[in-house]
Amino acid sequence: MPTDPHRLKEFACFSGLTENQRQEIGALASEVSFRSGHTLFEEGDPGSELYMLAAGQVEVLYSVGETGSTRVDTVGESEVLGCSSLIEPYLYSATAHCVSDVDVLVLDASELRKLMVKDCPMGYAIQNQIIRTLLDRIVDLRLGI
Amino acid sequence: MPTDPHRLKEFACFSGLTENQRQEIGALASEVSFRSGHTLFEEGDPGSELYMLAAGQVEVLYSVGETGSTRVDTVGESEVLGCSSLIEPYLYSATAHCVSDVDVLVLDASELRKLMVKDCPMGYAIQNQIIRTLLDRIVDLRLGI
Repeated sequence: MPTDPHRLKEFACFSGLTENQRQEIGALASEVSFRSGHTLFEEGDPGSELYMLAAGQVEVLYSVGETGSTRVDTVGESEVLGCSSLIEPYLYSATAHCVSDVDVLVLDASELRKLMVKDCPMGYAIQNQIIRTLLDRIVDLRLGI
Repeated sequence: MPTDPHRLKEFACFSGLTENQRQEIGALASEVSFRSGHTLFEEGDPGSELYMLAAGQVEVLYSVGETGSTRVDTVGESEVLGCSSLIEPYLYSATAHCVSDVDVLVLDASELRKLMVKDCPMGYAIQNQIIRTLLDRIVDLRLGI
């Protein structure tokens, strides 16, 4: 079932879009709940979906050398997960694991990529917000927040 | 003097562009050398220029609480500096300080932003590469590389 486009406004990624554009994206999104312990996606897997975290907490894990997976970050409400699904080579660069029950909006990444190319100003606006989000994340990481 | 568009190929940001698009961007770029010790830009300043580092090393500093500026990163050849000049509110989020003599391509950020909006597919391709670069930087920071 398509997502109410108003829900998308809560996420910075889609805040710069028109109502019509949000409607088109809402048609690609589903609202899903997962139990604590569920893995949303694994490092190296094809990036098939973009996740918008509506409630709950998700930890981000990386394989580091031979020591296995290490937690490198924890993200919460209103965050976007799986941005690498929008960028070549379209593979998840980390594993995302629910550490509480979570509610997410799940977007079909391949359909979203097509929409972003077809409606370039929409793609530009979304990417702009993703860059803003990543720059903020870099500041937090550099400051060890 | 405009920059030879072939120089731009060395930088991931512009690798996905056509020859014509690189020519338009080359017209906005200047090749400049700075001595060790020079500050390219300061945290909080208006983001007027995007820097492509052709040779040398630049350290990135943040103000952290009351302790003053702290070095949080060092970047080298082929890296881009000042991405926040392309994203609202168009302010540098860190200070960039040359720790060796450096050669840079300096791009007028305001003109580049206009070009990216006018030629949306060009803007989209540049943003796409910037996101790739930032995702890689986040992996490095998370892994402490």
